[in-house]
Amino acid sequence: MKKWVYFFGAGKAEGDGEWRDLLGGKGAGLAEMTKIGLPVPAGFTISTEACDHFYKNNKKYPAELKKQVIDNVARLEKVTKKKLGDPDNPLLVSVRSGSARSMPGMMETILNLGLNDKSVEGIAKVTGNERFAYDAYRRFVQMFSTVAMGMPKEDLEHKLRAMRQRLGVKEDTAVPASGWKELVGEYKAYYLEKAGQPFPEDPLEQLWGAIGAVFGSWMAEKAVTYRRVEKITGLLGTAVNVQQMVFGNTGDNSGTGVCFTRDPSSGEKIFYGDYLTNAQGEDVVAGIRTPVHLSELAKIMPKAYVQLEGVRVTLEKHYRDMQDMEFTLEEGTLYMLQTRTGKRTPAATFRIAMDMANEKLITKEEAMLRIKPEDIERLFYPVIDSKVDRKTLESKILAHGINAVPGAAVGKMCFSANETEEWAARGEKVILVRRETSPEDVGGMAVAQGILTATGGKTSHAAVVARGWGKCCVAGAETLDIDYKTKIMTDGKSGKSLKEGDWITLDGSEGIVYEGKMPLVTPELPKAYYTIIKWADEIRHLGVRTNADTPQDARKALEFGAEGIGLVRTEHMFFTDFEQPEKSHERQLAIQEMILANEKETRVKALDKLLPFQRRDFIGIFKVMDGFPVTIRLIDPPLHEFVPHEHAKQAELAKELGISVETVERRVAQLHEANPMLGHRGCRLTITYPEILEMQVRAIIEAAIECHKAKVKVIPEIMIPLTLDKKELGILVDATRRVADDLIKKAGVKLHYMVGTMIELPRAALLADEIAEVAEFFSFGTNDLTQTTMGLSRDDAGRFLPDYVDEKKAAVFHGDPFQTLDIKGVGMLIKWAIEKGRETRPKLEVGICGEHGGDAESVKFCHQVGMDYVSASPFRVPIARLAAAQAVVEDKQKAKSKKKK
Amino acid sequence: MKKWVYFFGAGKAEGDGEWRDLLGGKGAGLAEMTKIGLPVPAGFTISTEACDHFYKNNKKYPAELKKQVIDNVARLEKVTKKKLGDPDNPLLVSVRSGSARSMPGMMETILNLGLNDKSVEGIAKVTGNERFAYDAYRRFVQMFSTVAMGMPKEDLEHKLRAMRQRLGVKEDTAVPASGWKELVGEYKAYYLEKAGQPFPEDPLEQLWGAIGAVFGSWMAEKAVTYRRVEKITGLLGTAVNVQQMVFGNTGDNSGTGVCFTRDPSSGEKIFYGDYLTNAQGEDVVAGIRTPVHLSELAKIMPKAYVQLEGVRVTLEKHYRDMQDMEFTLEEGTLYMLQTRTGKRTPAATFRIAMDMANEKLITKEEAMLRIKPEDIERLFYPVIDSKVDRKTLESKILAHGINAVPGAAVGKMCFSANETEEWAARGEKVILVRRETSPEDVGGMAVAQGILTATGGKTSHAAVVARGWGKCCVAGAETLDIDYKTKIMTDGKSGKSLKEGDWITLDGSEGIVYEGKMPLVTPELPKAYYTIIKWADEIRHLGVRTNADTPQDARKALEFGAEGIGLVRTEHMFFTDFEQPEKSHERQLAIQEMILANEKETRVKALDKLLPFQRRDFIGIFKVMDGFPVTIRLIDPPLHEFVPHEHAKQAELAKELGISVETVERRVAQLHEANPMLGHRGCRLTITYPEILEMQVRAIIEAAIECHKAKVKVIPEIMIPLTLDKKELGILVDATRRVADDLIKKAGVKLHYMVGTMIELPRAALLADEIAEVAEFFSFGTNDLTQTTMGLSRDDAGRFLPDYVDEKKAAVFHGDPFQTLDIKGVGMLIKWAIEKGRETRPKLEVGICGEHGGDAESVKFCHQVGMDYVSASPFRVPIARLAAAQAVVEDKQKAKSKKKK
Repeated sequence: MKKWVYFFGAGKAEGDGEWRDLLGGKGAGLAEMTKIGLPVPAGFTISTEACDHFYKNNKKYPAELKKQVIDNVARLEKVTKKKLGDPDNPLLVSVRSGSARSMPGMMETILNLGLNDKSVEGIAKVTGNERFAYDAYRRFVQMFSTVAMGMPKEDLEHKLRAMRQRLGVKEDTAVPASGWKELVGEYKAYYLEKAGQPFPEDPLEQLWGAIGAVFGSWMAEKAVTYRRVEKITGLLGTAVNVQQMVFGNTGDNSGTGVCFTRDPSSGEKIFYGDYLTNAQGEDVVAGIRTPVHLSELAKIMPKAYVQLEGVRVTLEKHYRDMQDMEFTLEEGTLYMLQTRTGKRTPAATFRIAMDMANEKLITKEEAMLRIKPEDIERLFYPVIDSKVDRKTLESKILAHGINAVPGAAVGKMCFSANETEEWAARGEKVILVRRETSPEDVGGMAVAQGILTATGGKTSHAAVVARGWGKCCVAGAETLDIDYKTKIMTDGKSGKSLKEGDWITLDGSEGIVYEGKMPLVTPELPKAYYTIIKWADEIRHLGVRTNADTPQDARKALEFGAEGIGLVRTEHMFFTDFEQPEKSHERQLAIQEMILANEKETRVKALDKLLPFQRRDFIGIFKVMDGFPVTIRLIDPPLHEFVPHEHAKQAELAKELGISVETVERRVAQLHEANPMLGHRGCRLTITYPEILEMQVRAIIEAAIECHKAKVKVIPEIMIPLTLDKKELGILVDATRRVADDLIKKAGVKLHYMVGTMIELPRAALLADEIAEVAEFFSFGTNDLTQTTMGLSRDDAGRFLPDYVDEKKAAVFHGDPFQTLDIKGVGMLIKWAIEKGRETRPKLEVGICGEHGGDAESVKFCHQVGMDYVSASPFRVPIARLAAAQAVVEDKQKAKSKKKK
Repeated sequence: MKKWVYFFGAGKAEGDGEWRDLLGGKGAGLAEMTKIGLPVPAGFTISTEACDHFYKNNKKYPAELKKQVIDNVARLEKVTKKKLGDPDNPLLVSVRSGSARSMPGMMETILNLGLNDKSVEGIAKVTGNERFAYDAYRRFVQMFSTVAMGMPKEDLEHKLRAMRQRLGVKEDTAVPASGWKELVGEYKAYYLEKAGQPFPEDPLEQLWGAIGAVFGSWMAEKAVTYRRVEKITGLLGTAVNVQQMVFGNTGDNSGTGVCFTRDPSSGEKIFYGDYLTNAQGEDVVAGIRTPVHLSELAKIMPKAYVQLEGVRVTLEKHYRDMQDMEFTLEEGTLYMLQTRTGKRTPAATFRIAMDMANEKLITKEEAMLRIKPEDIERLFYPVIDSKVDRKTLESKILAHGINAVPGAAVGKMCFSANETEEWAARGEKVILVRRETSPEDVGGMAVAQGILTATGGKTSHAAVVARGWGKCCVAGAETLDIDYKTKIMTDGKSGKSLKEGDWITLDGSEGIVYEGKMPLVTPELPKAYYTIIKWADEIRHLGVRTNADTPQDARKALEFGAEGIGLVRTEHMFFTDFEQPEKSHERQLAIQEMILANEKETRVKALDKLLPFQRRDFIGIFKVMDGFPVTIRLIDPPLHEFVPHEHAKQAELAKELGISVETVERRVAQLHEANPMLGHRGCRLTITYPEILEMQVRAIIEAAIECHKAKVKVIPEIMIPLTLDKKELGILVDATRRVADDLIKKAGVKLHYMVGTMIELPRAALLADEIAEVAEFFSFGTNDLTQTTMGLSRDDAGRFLPDYVDEKKAAVFHGDPFQTLDIKGVGMLIKWAIEKGRETRPKLEVGICGEHGGDAESVKFCHQVGMDYVSASPFRVPIARLAAAQAVVEDKQKAKSKKKK
């Protein structure tokens, strides 16, 4: 017979802390705590498999469940020496949900189950406290009615308030037993009316109702949404924990508390928590009464405090991590209700990991594994100053949305991307506010402080684009109604309205929109960050480079620990002169002249104008990167991206270049492509126009020679994009070497450079053995490789990709394949290409320069397939460094567990 | 020492007919003929390797070549018993080029080499014919001057004409010895003036000059262009054949002829050719004198004729194919100068292959291998009626271009695609004439009779699009100047002008543009076609289906031998009601209403309107295809293709649908995609809108049930496009089966149907093992698979793909990968997918439905990788049938040759 129910109590348990998948986090924790001898109220857990069975069988319980529950109730009665529904010494239980992954606030709890008109008298008798008994009873009826039966909470709350008013009291603590008794009567009458049958007196009937409610909560809208947003997948369902009730609200000798074994905010090793006398756990959560700091307990009940300190030590030793515990004191006796790994701030995450490693509680390697990519990310983003009073802050909340990209941003609301560009150009700080964004909005997004949208989630266009830039974004704030015409934004929930130009503040880490200007601070990096990242650097194999187009970016990346540049996008220099912005227009003209040229001669003349600019840019970058490799990609995007598409701008350009506007129009029209992603771009451009390659190679090598002469150590790697064939690449490699070798020879210097290619097309990956014959290095352009392998345009995927990650819809992917590499498909090609490439050229240098180079999971894959380095945006370099180290640690762990088996 | 020179003569040869690559076609033929005992003038061949060496070493001859040539000259002198430059009995030789592939008229020949002021007297003495000797001498000087030294032919021709005028004669035959003598003097004076040195008297110097000229001709502009156009690649170079001269112009007992062992026009088994008394080969080619039919020779020189008949029999027996031979009679003695496989018309190709198989000269299998895809293609296309007088035809030639797509077409010239559509709509026959075409012209191209462009070659946009439709196209007629403004087309060569609206005729098989209306005929299929295609069907393994969207197309394909439909594009039915054209608009409205719908309910209502239309279409197709499988693809293209993009049409649509024009505009704008090829299309549409799938499946299955009840044998295969993941496909397969099974159950019939998918994305191919878990069949959509694997948009490739196939530029590909499958890259994925798919599902049905299904080379690949069928456009079905058979024969041949080794 399949086992669906697992008992714990009296120092023994049928499961343990490892069984999270089966018993849920709470159930596994209770079993574990019981086993290690902590004072845990006894109980049993209905497994997540039962929940899975429930949903797979048209919401029917497994056949054997009923008997197993009854057996376990009997066992619980034996251990507690109480009986469910016993009018003399009744057993009361709590019924709580608990899945393998914490989903705070998402699922249901029912307390004091087992009370009925008879047993309530038993409780009154046993505790000698009638008021307490009826208070417990009214709480139970209320919870059962709302949670198990779905009756509206407000109706019951209203009755409570009315009763208090009748009695003329302000707080629940002041309500006498008679008041509660009366309320129970009112609740039951209401229940009868709503349900069409009386409130169940049979405790077993109550219990099944509660179990059904817990299972039901698993598929509730909000829980499903939460799992989708948090990317929680692969769970069977929720477990149901049925546990003996203990009471912190029997008098001043009782109480309840929540505590952390270390400070969850700073990570400091102090005992931290809240305690509330004469209260049940829900009172702490509800926040009606203000708890005292845990240290007070030492004064109120010194014996209990010492015992709790003992539990703290035991738990940390046992779990080897900071714990978040709930406890109750019932008449001075300590009961542990829950323990789980405590949530903490990013700073605390680093501090605790470092401290525990230093305390030898965990190893350095384990310490590294404890850092999640988001922890690093959030260290670098600005946040709302913690000095702002919490109450003030809360009063300014306008709306909640999805925390799409962390960080905080302040600015004036603007509803149009074009105007955002205008405002920003005159120095304003702007938050771009849109119902949803589309590729046309990218210009405005780029200059905005932050982005707010009313629709879409973490894979929406807004979120994906903003994430690429590390720009704060709150998406899907669905209560907001944004009226583009009246330029007014109204929160449908609160009715509050703001108009365009008003200041707002976004908290992208929490997904909150505030009215007004909040002070922001960039948190100082904790000492522990430097310690742990140093540990990571000591063990990782993968090099970490950066994607940078300017000396400024390069310098920033160096600070973040980059060991070279894996991608310089030369065409970014076509439009902007980062050192002399007043020269940007001159550059633009030259590149546009080159594109509009009808014949080689004119093209070459335009390229000659561009050459000194590019050379200067490269010199700037080489100098910053002294001693580190710099991988420079030759022109990549389709030429239409460099010419104006509006008539007015075309006319202006024609005038400046002294050609007819018809010529400009015709040439721009010629450049139009149905699918530019798959069009005339990448090395196809230099096959058609070898003179562009010649100019760029000249600029690179001349810059390198100049730096070399100035004693800068230059290591240029010239990278040819979008290859699909060895012959094609060979032609371009030859052309590159011809120009480069000639310059080097003439300069009479010794300069080593490499010529390699990007692997961005499936065909290039498939034929990597041939391509490696002519390429000295591969750099995987995983953005394009993902687009082509999956046939998925990154610009357009916003239309349907959300359906593909939505758990309620297709759920084809676990996440956005442009964020985390599609290891199954795209990864298969990468692995193949590396193997084949190294068969041909064993010392082939291999790296990655797509967005995935800054994604921890993808970085680990890069380690597994034996790449030499990853290249990430500057601010993601630390994530890559740590992920590279974690990959090494995980390798070791796997090897070890294999050995064990 | 490397051997560069190969001797033949006196019944022995150092090479044979197989050595085409090394000796060129001519050299190998001479060696072979010598070996089998035919009367061939002796000589030697300088190998193609020498030419290759020449070009790889900065135009230097191999070191050993000089000595080897001198040795072979000595050997030749020994065999012929004559000496080069001997004043008494001089040896004269011809020097001819000859590569492994015939390139008619592309390379150079020099005759009578060895003549100088002394040896000419020897010839006069030996032949007793001074006139002949000086005639030969002036011919040699002329050829050497123009061919080896590149002097302008016109200058020399002018001197010849002047001399004839002086002498008052009209024909060369009337010029006396003194005339020729005088002319030689004039030529030499001219030579001295032009070259700055006297005409070489040393025969060896002459010989090296001639060899250099032959090598030089290999890289001449016209030869390179010819090879590019004819897709001739992989050759080392040209060989040089040095051979003893024989003379057909020593008197009436001499002569020269060209003959075919069978009629190259009809294929009939008759001895066919031309003979010219007292003439050299070049006289036949020049066409100055009219030769007589070969049968006349039997009367003039019966003995020689009988001997020639003997050679004919020997050669056909030996070569087992129709031969094209050149011979010379010198004083009654027969010399064979060349034999090669004869060119023939498509009809003759079939007739000769069939006859030879019936005669047991070749096997049936060899007969099948002799048919090329173009031979079949050209059987079906209309041609200019052969009754048109040849002279008339020639006088009407306006320009020559590239024979991009065969067939002929007549129509009025129109210079704009839009107007072409208008003209065609009012029933006019139109030829679309453009400098070049672009995707915007496709509408006009579709309704035009034929397409003419001034630029571009066989991979130009015009050629590629026209070929897809089997529509006659002459591309790259570069002498034509097309003025869009004045609407006048002028031929730069002849100066002839035509204006828009004038009639022209295109011959796409020859690449010729004619003025005026020529009568066209569709040739009757030769009997031999049916015989050979029957033989093919008997041995092929691959099934051949067709791509057809209407009952009409299906019927046509059945006539061509299709065994089912491999691709019905359901969306083609969205726009056109093929049975009741007046209902087309109603359909369009329904589909547009569906697309513009904001919510499911409205969408479903619109789909309900579409359902009866689709059902009726499927009934029509099922009835035609009674007993054959019909593979129906669910909606594939992005929705923006179905809605109007011009404001006026949007307004009209809004009015018809009773919605605001803003709604139409907004929705259309929402549908815009940056890269629609990689966007929201294929099964992504039905993931987003499952109701579309439900409607389509309902239409298919309801149609099938109705046909089934009417005793039609229906075998529906429902095909889901653009899959990339098993989970995605699984969702859609489940949805399909839910609808289908429910309908079948309700109808109470037994109906078998299959659900499968297209493999069009690299990811789907890579993960084929998983995908085969839910797909009952795979159909490779190689158009899209090529686009994604190569990152190459078919619509845009016209910009750069020509560079990629141009031998003088990149020459990355041998041909357009959208025509012939990229076996190396895309083929690797296909092979992998089939293997992996069948590992999961051994009986997985596998086919192909991209354009490649009608390309012979690609069909052979499909056979090799074990596909079950290919699906081709109706008119390419016979090509696929034959190619499938050829693949089997080639397999057998390979197996045999492996055994031998």
